[in-house]
Amino acid sequence: MAATTPEAKYELITRRLQEVLGGDSIKAILAEGRSLKGYWGTAPTGRPHIGYFVPLTKISDFLHADVEVSSCNLHVHAFLDNLKAPLELVTYRTKFYKHLLLAVFTSLGIPTTKLTFVEGSSYQLTREYNLDNYKLCASVTEHDAKKAGAEVVKQVESPLLSGLLYPGLQALDEEYLGADFQFGGVDQRKIFTFAEAYLPRLGYRKRAHLMNAMVPGLAGGKMSSSDPNSKIDFLDAPEVVRKKLKLAFCEEGNVEDNGVLSFVQAVLIPISEMRIAHLKGDKILVDGTGDPKPFIGDDAPDGTVFSVVRDEKHGGPLHFANFEEVKTSFAARELHPKDLKKAVADAIVDLLEPVRKAFEENEEWQQVEKLAYPDLNAKPEQKKKKKEKVYHPPPPGKGKNATKPVVDGDATPSDTAHAAAEQAKQQPPQSETAVVEASP
Amino acid sequence: MAATTPEAKYELITRRLQEVLGGDSIKAILAEGRSLKGYWGTAPTGRPHIGYFVPLTKISDFLHADVEVSSCNLHVHAFLDNLKAPLELVTYRTKFYKHLLLAVFTSLGIPTTKLTFVEGSSYQLTREYNLDNYKLCASVTEHDAKKAGAEVVKQVESPLLSGLLYPGLQALDEEYLGADFQFGGVDQRKIFTFAEAYLPRLGYRKRAHLMNAMVPGLAGGKMSSSDPNSKIDFLDAPEVVRKKLKLAFCEEGNVEDNGVLSFVQAVLIPISEMRIAHLKGDKILVDGTGDPKPFIGDDAPDGTVFSVVRDEKHGGPLHFANFEEVKTSFAARELHPKDLKKAVADAIVDLLEPVRKAFEENEEWQQVEKLAYPDLNAKPEQKKKKKEKVYHPPPPGKGKNATKPVVDGDATPSDTAHAAAEQAKQQPPQSETAVVEASP
Repeated sequence: MAATTPEAKYELITRRLQEVLGGDSIKAILAEGRSLKGYWGTAPTGRPHIGYFVPLTKISDFLHADVEVSSCNLHVHAFLDNLKAPLELVTYRTKFYKHLLLAVFTSLGIPTTKLTFVEGSSYQLTREYNLDNYKLCASVTEHDAKKAGAEVVKQVESPLLSGLLYPGLQALDEEYLGADFQFGGVDQRKIFTFAEAYLPRLGYRKRAHLMNAMVPGLAGGKMSSSDPNSKIDFLDAPEVVRKKLKLAFCEEGNVEDNGVLSFVQAVLIPISEMRIAHLKGDKILVDGTGDPKPFIGDDAPDGTVFSVVRDEKHGGPLHFANFEEVKTSFAARELHPKDLKKAVADAIVDLLEPVRKAFEENEEWQQVEKLAYPDLNAKPEQKKKKKEKVYHPPPPGKGKNATKPVVDGDATPSDTAHAAAEQAKQQPPQSETAVVEASP
Repeated sequence: MAATTPEAKYELITRRLQEVLGGDSIKAILAEGRSLKGYWGTAPTGRPHIGYFVPLTKISDFLHADVEVSSCNLHVHAFLDNLKAPLELVTYRTKFYKHLLLAVFTSLGIPTTKLTFVEGSSYQLTREYNLDNYKLCASVTEHDAKKAGAEVVKQVESPLLSGLLYPGLQALDEEYLGADFQFGGVDQRKIFTFAEAYLPRLGYRKRAHLMNAMVPGLAGGKMSSSDPNSKIDFLDAPEVVRKKLKLAFCEEGNVEDNGVLSFVQAVLIPISEMRIAHLKGDKILVDGTGDPKPFIGDDAPDGTVFSVVRDEKHGGPLHFANFEEVKTSFAARELHPKDLKKAVADAIVDLLEPVRKAFEENEEWQQVEKLAYPDLNAKPEQKKKKKEKVYHPPPPGKGKNATKPVVDGDATPSDTAHAAAEQAKQQPPQSETAVVEASP
């Protein structure tokens, strides 16, 4: 898996992607022996959920192929989505994202020396960038801008101007970040082809575009996207993760609309493979803060990439050598939803443990979290009570504990409700960059 | 006419306007004894024509009322109209406008100590301005932006994004120029009310808006706007002015759609009145470079503001005490179009003479003019010939003089054609700021 030849690097960079536009330009740069530069944009509008594991897993491929990756916090883009995250929040959320992404990479042992965190606001408000934005606006028609954003800009009755600016700004980012390619979900395809068409009109190079397949949320397509249980937060406690998994849509035998199965394919198996290769001596990982054990049983035969542990009375463990085997087993109703969910919950709890730990040990990050995602429903009095609770716990049946649900040991009801509402408001993974929602 | 009281200043500031929005805020500032700040924007997209005399005449009222006027060359706005004036041209045109406006004020003897020429690019590309622009874009709907620009943004089948940005940028200009009011043609009304609605949403003060009536071009509404003869350039030679006046639409007895009559009302009579007051000792003008004679006959009775000189055999001179009298006389077919046109041509030639002279004496301005309005049709060889001509005039019937029309002593045929085409492409006076034409 350690890629040294241009061909091997290209294979690593493009594997598991749904689509590659401009692959030849990537091959040409690799043939020159030059390091590639990739750009992955995130708009810190909401609170990142574990869907982010999908692009992060792919980014680890880039890093292993010696790609210099710019993870750009698109401050201005996020800010353009004003109703969802006002300016002051965006600034803190930008910091929260950086803490989180770094913690996730570190937990997985993915080396980050070639990963750069860029603040979009560092160049998106410069004279040159804005002049280029104006230039674009003077040549892009409303029709083209709308078409480009059709899949990622929420279609509302009274669309805002910001939704029309998005495609142009995202095109300019490629130039201003010096990227050779931009990476995103396949939902960004029209934005990407827009960039390919318009950057050359400003005299800039057309960039390559690498697209991940879209991965459904745990809720799948059939549950409401406003269901707070459909997204798992990176900082969710194990009990919360398990509860959300239990509620996830995962119909027996149905492999088509199954977010749990998709997560196995897009996140768990790639990470498992990475860890197996690492254990075999492939120097692709560094020491991570998490347990580097692949998601396989102790008794798994060679070649296993994913195991589902079951009691012997339920048929004993299932070992899979690739995702197709998992899918086939599930379709044949050999692998039951309950067992799959348990295996996935175990894996997610395992993945989140070092991230939660990093958060708990980092006071700065905790401060940022409070400012980035304030509890808008909490009354000052309640907050005071909460603080007092640490020293003077109210008697059972009194105080706010009386109405506290059991899902989260730390959060107050309104905290939980707010966090859930935040999650619910989020875009699907990989399409953070260009989603504009006009309704709050 | 010298206004010293708040009431007199308000009267001077608002006289002859078609509409005033927010007059109370102007009165309040005057009552405080503070100097007002006004903003008049020009987008140097084309070549200014003498329709500019209309706002300039009004601006002289502002200056006399101690208003600090920012004449802002809206570099970015002009540039947004990319197809009409690419960036390099806009930069030179900005300079050309400044030379010209200053020369016109100086020719009329209007004191310019309270007039500031601002380059829009000095603030329109800053971090703060662009952040505010993004803020606006995140709260303005496409619908509102389109509605605001409906009268000044050319309605085309594939409108550009730039047309949607205009209203917001023009609103921000009010804040960034520290203006108390913005002045423009009544065609800007929707842009102005848009600014009144949206600036407060950014936490900025709502500004007052003063609107001139629209004055039709010399061609009137019935001739094609692409008719090169409908616009008189500030640098047109007397013969050209007279020729264009002859071609102007000015139907006998028709006072409704008569650009020549409108010019008398909006430019000649106000200037005449200003000069008469000056001659009577009102210290409103300084020594101008032009002849400070009002547009009245030597034998005009007291109270005359405009005279039409005619041979005795055609009825002798006509003297008018105000515009209504001119209009009534024309409607009654007492004042014949030919005589009116001659009187207006004489007045315009008189007004332009010191401007042309200033141009001829200013090498820098001449250089800027060449760069700002290049002769795109001229071949290098022809240009060379032209230069040679100065020292080696070709024999009669040879060289480019052979095909040269008599309308302009200085311009080559293609120069003339280009200048005319430039004029034709221009917006009507007073609406320069916000016109976007998508078609070249």
